[in-house]
Amino acid sequence: MAGDSASPVFTDGNVFGVGATANAFGVDAVLDVTIEEEAARRAAAAVRRLIVALSATSASIEDLDRIADAVDAITASVPAGAPDDLVVPGDFSVISDTAIRQSHRLRERSPFIGQANPVAPPMHVVFTEDAIEATVTLGSLFEGPPGCVHGGFVAAMFDEVLGAAQVHSGKAGMTGRLTVHYRSPTPLNEELRLAAKLIRVEGRKILCTATLHAGERLCADAEGLFVTVNLDKMRAMLEAGGGSASG
Amino acid sequence: MAGDSASPVFTDGNVFGVGATANAFGVDAVLDVTIEEEAARRAAAAVRRLIVALSATSASIEDLDRIADAVDAITASVPAGAPDDLVVPGDFSVISDTAIRQSHRLRERSPFIGQANPVAPPMHVVFTEDAIEATVTLGSLFEGPPGCVHGGFVAAMFDEVLGAAQVHSGKAGMTGRLTVHYRSPTPLNEELRLAAKLIRVEGRKILCTATLHAGERLCADAEGLFVTVNLDKMRAMLEAGGGSASG
Repeated sequence: MAGDSASPVFTDGNVFGVGATANAFGVDAVLDVTIEEEAARRAAAAVRRLIVALSATSASIEDLDRIADAVDAITASVPAGAPDDLVVPGDFSVISDTAIRQSHRLRERSPFIGQANPVAPPMHVVFTEDAIEATVTLGSLFEGPPGCVHGGFVAAMFDEVLGAAQVHSGKAGMTGRLTVHYRSPTPLNEELRLAAKLIRVEGRKILCTATLHAGERLCADAEGLFVTVNLDKMRAMLEAGGGSASG
Repeated sequence: MAGDSASPVFTDGNVFGVGATANAFGVDAVLDVTIEEEAARRAAAAVRRLIVALSATSASIEDLDRIADAVDAITASVPAGAPDDLVVPGDFSVISDTAIRQSHRLRERSPFIGQANPVAPPMHVVFTEDAIEATVTLGSLFEGPPGCVHGGFVAAMFDEVLGAAQVHSGKAGMTGRLTVHYRSPTPLNEELRLAAKLIRVEGRKILCTATLHAGERLCADAEGLFVTVNLDKMRAMLEAGGGSASG
């Protein structure tokens, strides 16, 4: 904690909210994008371009099958075996080396903000002194009602920014309850702005709220209740698998 | 339904709930997967295999840049210009030809169930007589907390199945409020089962609930409130863009 402050310091890209201890590990350890991460981001961006092209193509069946074969040829050339960077399940400490690695993992791989995850749009998240702000423009890949962003994706983006905002409490819990109010249609192909902030902490509970705007129009708002977890219990449940509760 | 029932009949793949009128247009029009759709699904599946391979690779920076270049070469070969199958924004009728097209669009392209959308896992959705059931197994692309499905993705999946269940009301609205309660960790790499059902209809409001299980363990449950929309108002908002409310 370096002892000089009770509240974490947040910085752009510090997704998991590794806070005041950043200096203990060196801020660089939190902020750095490694050259390996940059390469993974480039590969993901290329895949994203392909996905977008496929979402708006006049390709014939023959074209599509040729494309599928060409993609499979690339896949066959991808070296197997991920580097072992497994984070201990259930380690939600915000003041550990594990937390820094987890922050990096989410920053790079989250299905919503992860630049190295081709399924992420990705959202761009910035930490301010007392809030989280995010921007994103979503195309037809994220369509629900005609011309609108899928309501499920709206909820998902809220969980992401609320989950980041909760760490302003100096703790980090798992989502306990998420409530989203849809106020007006969320448009495709327009910049969307999300903002989330910490409201209060009560014991193990952390309450945050967030809004989503398109221009000046409020599209949706949300409340997230996070609960700091019992790590032993969580590990036991994950290790036991889904069938455990029936025994 | 040839007029013998007021309640829609739901069938596997009939995502948007085109119901009692299916026979008026021919059930085939609702259920058919065209050979073009099948080809688009094959291409999407190939891209999905590539994404999964990239999520677990030991590729070097040189490997990753070679892969990115190869993917970009494919992208350059994808014919531009999507076929014009635009659905009229705001047409939420469940008894129209437009609704059948919209049902197909969501079935193929939804970011959660769309087999032709590479960013969808995809979930597999089945309509039963009075409910919606879905199954999905999610890998590390959808990770949030270590070893667990991202809470945002859990919420998104609920919106999808709740949005399908609401059509059992014979209407179709947009999500008004979504509330998700997270009860226990949702595991990666295990089959998840979602079930959603219609609870009641009150005027323009449609209430549905849903659960998510891993094996016998309840991971989360949710409530969705859907509201049938004022189509003229919605169209006006989308056409005006996000800046309109400031004027």
